[in-house]
Amino acid sequence: MKSNLHSYENDLNRKILATDFYQPSTRTRFSFEAAIIKLGGSVISTENAEQFSSVAKGETLEDSIRYISCLADFIVLRNRWNDSSFRAANVSRVPVLNGGAGTAQHPTQALLDVFTIYENFGRLTNLDIGVFNDLKNSRTVQSLVHLLSDFPGNRFYFCSIPSLMLPAELEEDLSKKGVQYLKTNDLREALSKSSVAYFTRLQAEYIKDEVERKRLMEEIAENENKYCKYAITEDTIKFMPENSILLHPLPRGPEIDPRVDLDPRAKYFEQAENGLYVRMAILEILNRRNRKKP
Amino acid sequence: MKSNLHSYENDLNRKILATDFYQPSTRTRFSFEAAIIKLGGSVISTENAEQFSSVAKGETLEDSIRYISCLADFIVLRNRWNDSSFRAANVSRVPVLNGGAGTAQHPTQALLDVFTIYENFGRLTNLDIGVFNDLKNSRTVQSLVHLLSDFPGNRFYFCSIPSLMLPAELEEDLSKKGVQYLKTNDLREALSKSSVAYFTRLQAEYIKDEVERKRLMEEIAENENKYCKYAITEDTIKFMPENSILLHPLPRGPEIDPRVDLDPRAKYFEQAENGLYVRMAILEILNRRNRKKP
Amino acid sequence: MKSNLHSYENDLNRKILATDFYQPSTRTRFSFEAAIIKLGGSVISTENAEQFSSVAKGETLEDSIRYISCLADFIVLRNRWNDSSFRAANVSRVPVLNGGAGTAQHPTQALLDVFTIYENFGRLTNLDIGVFNDLKNSRTVQSLVHLLSDFPGNRFYFCSIPSLMLPAELEEDLSKKGVQYLKTNDLREALSKSSVAYFTRLQAEYIKDEVERKRLMEEIAENENKYCKYAITEDTIKFMPENSILLHPLPRGPEIDPRVDLDPRAKYFEQAENGLYVRMAILEILNRRNRKKP
Repeated sequence: MKSNLHSYENDLNRKILATDFYQPSTRTRFSFEAAIIKLGGSVISTENAEQFSSVAKGETLEDSIRYISCLADFIVLRNRWNDSSFRAANVSRVPVLNGGAGTAQHPTQALLDVFTIYENFGRLTNLDIGVFNDLKNSRTVQSLVHLLSDFPGNRFYFCSIPSLMLPAELEEDLSKKGVQYLKTNDLREALSKSSVAYFTRLQAEYIKDEVERKRLMEEIAENENKYCKYAITEDTIKFMPENSILLHPLPRGPEIDPRVDLDPRAKYFEQAENGLYVRMAILEILNRRNRKKP
Repeated sequence: MKSNLHSYENDLNRKILATDFYQPSTRTRFSFEAAIIKLGGSVISTENAEQFSSVAKGETLEDSIRYISCLADFIVLRNRWNDSSFRAANVSRVPVLNGGAGTAQHPTQALLDVFTIYENFGRLTNLDIGVFNDLKNSRTVQSLVHLLSDFPGNRFYFCSIPSLMLPAELEEDLSKKGVQYLKTNDLREALSKSSVAYFTRLQAEYIKDEVERKRLMEEIAENENKYCKYAITEDTIKFMPENSILLHPLPRGPEIDPRVDLDPRAKYFEQAENGLYVRMAILEILNRRNRKKP
Repeated sequence: MKSNLHSYENDLNRKILATDFYQPSTRTRFSFEAAIIKLGGSVISTENAEQFSSVAKGETLEDSIRYISCLADFIVLRNRWNDSSFRAANVSRVPVLNGGAGTAQHPTQALLDVFTIYENFGRLTNLDIGVFNDLKNSRTVQSLVHLLSDFPGNRFYFCSIPSLMLPAELEEDLSKKGVQYLKTNDLREALSKSSVAYFTRLQAEYIKDEVERKRLMEEIAENENKYCKYAITEDTIKFMPENSILLHPLPRGPEIDPRVDLDPRAKYFEQAENGLYVRMAILEILNRRNRKKP
């Protein structure tokens, strides 16, 4: 699909994708919208359902989805509730795509992540994957680790401060599957062992409490004094092996210095572009499989 | 059109529908947008004209509409002012569709309501129509009663507390036309006589005054003690005749318990879907009749 | 293009225009969106990037544009920063169209202004151009004067109070080019000499300081007592020569009384409509010239 975009351009003619976003995002929304348009379809869109939709008038998410599924052929939902996609899929007459659900999952992001890894290594097995920074609140991390741990031979290096380490359930899940992983707060150690270095930003918007936020900043600063900053700079990128790749779901904060953008290992913009092709593929597959329910 | 969607799919190719919404609504907006897309056209859309349009910079509604009518082939307007559609149509070079005007009218909703009634009874005459809850502030009620009272033999049962009863002007209009109607605050009586039961939600957003809101809640509670709750539940749905239908313009509040959704008389989701076909038909007809004015 | 719209209607099939607006505007946004649709393309759109985009999560404008340019074929950017378009164009893989940058420039508005002048006079040279009201903060004035001063023989009459007179840099630019111009605070004098009278509204949203705003209002009132109001009314339109034209970028405030709308010299709605054709032409030309960068 990536190498042969034009041969798919009428596959979803007259199909409508509804983007129903309760949380800010032009990025994921634009990516899905461009995907359906490239396949010949159209978009109906709300970027502020929290404020403008009928849910604001007291309607349930279920009623709202049931209504939209009468009009559209696909629904992309982004919502702060972890179980929102399941609740929506349960009542919808058309496929519901999870465009980000609370702190739980962001599955299409994980699919474009693994597509980018596959493009670079030709495999999804026997890889050393470093995951950095906010492993606790990042839904992209939950989805990616969940997905990659299903492929044999992958080893994980989780690098963060204790307070932002992987959630206990995800760790248990890895243990059950017998997946090898190491937890560390030493950036150098994790980076030098990783063939894939996956960075995330601090999801500061989830930390409402001022005291908690301050305590966290102190813990980060303390750890930085002991080791080094959890950031890719012209200095720290030297720890990365030559054939490794650097990924980030974007948007990035200070954790990746723009001065490393031209380094051949920096693949986050290719990764972002791959989102278009992966989402086109998802829509194409769903279109073949699904027929609107009565 | 409902049974033969595909034969219309190129009728409005390259036509542009502008949705100009000054009040929150994904529901009506999405329905119009899906309608033009299904006919081959496209959309330009604002969901927050109150805040973002040039009217926010002090422009008159007339200037704004005159401008949009240079770009689009149809305009759907939702605005808090009761006379907004008339003012807009007066200066527009293209058809203006009233997508909801203040507390006054919501005519396309009334058209999809009567379409659903016709689909179920094969006629729009000699029907017993119960209208429930907020008859004062609901613009869908004003439009529906106005429309159905033009057909011979229809009888109305208006069921609400005194403070939310039908506006005096609408009652006078019915009297002038010689239409039979009964006002009651007894849910059981009204439900058992209705072949069409049309429920609405309390339009709480129009009651700004806290004291007034509190007084209203007390009046509702008192009436509920005397009769029963103005709500369709597994208990009260038993009052409905076997071949009657239950409609609601949606979004619903507590006035319809989701546990009755599977009752064969509950037609509000079919009604919602009909909005798509009715709005397609409106656009199709307007397109045949209207040519852009110079 | 204006007289032969239909022959271009498939030129930009499947092309995507992204509108990335950080400041309120349905007007310019709708005009660009209608333009791409009339050429066969589609739109992905955000009307509130300030609040909803990833830039709200701390992303740089550069990262955001780089991402959008992976998805879209054109980007229209409106942003409060004067240098935003240059910064965006610097990193984008596709053409960036300046849809309004701070108080600096609004180049597509200037192009539709000169198109309207050309349509009426058959030339862009040897014209007497009066520019009225807020010459300091209006980005459309900066762009228009800059553009028209490149054509030989044009003379300018700048009519405003001292506090809202042309910025010093633009005056220096005119002097360097040897362009004739007169500054005046006498509406009658400027109007009677102008073949093109270009009005603007007071850009009150840029004056945050209450004291400054009050002082300005007093200066305006004082000047009005001395001469007459800086407004086109049924009285002042008499000062305009018979074959002159009255333009305004819209939205208008009190500076043009709607009662003069039917005067044959009032061309601001034709001007607004021309925006569609001019923006179509811009997209058409860019599409021929530009190929997406790798």
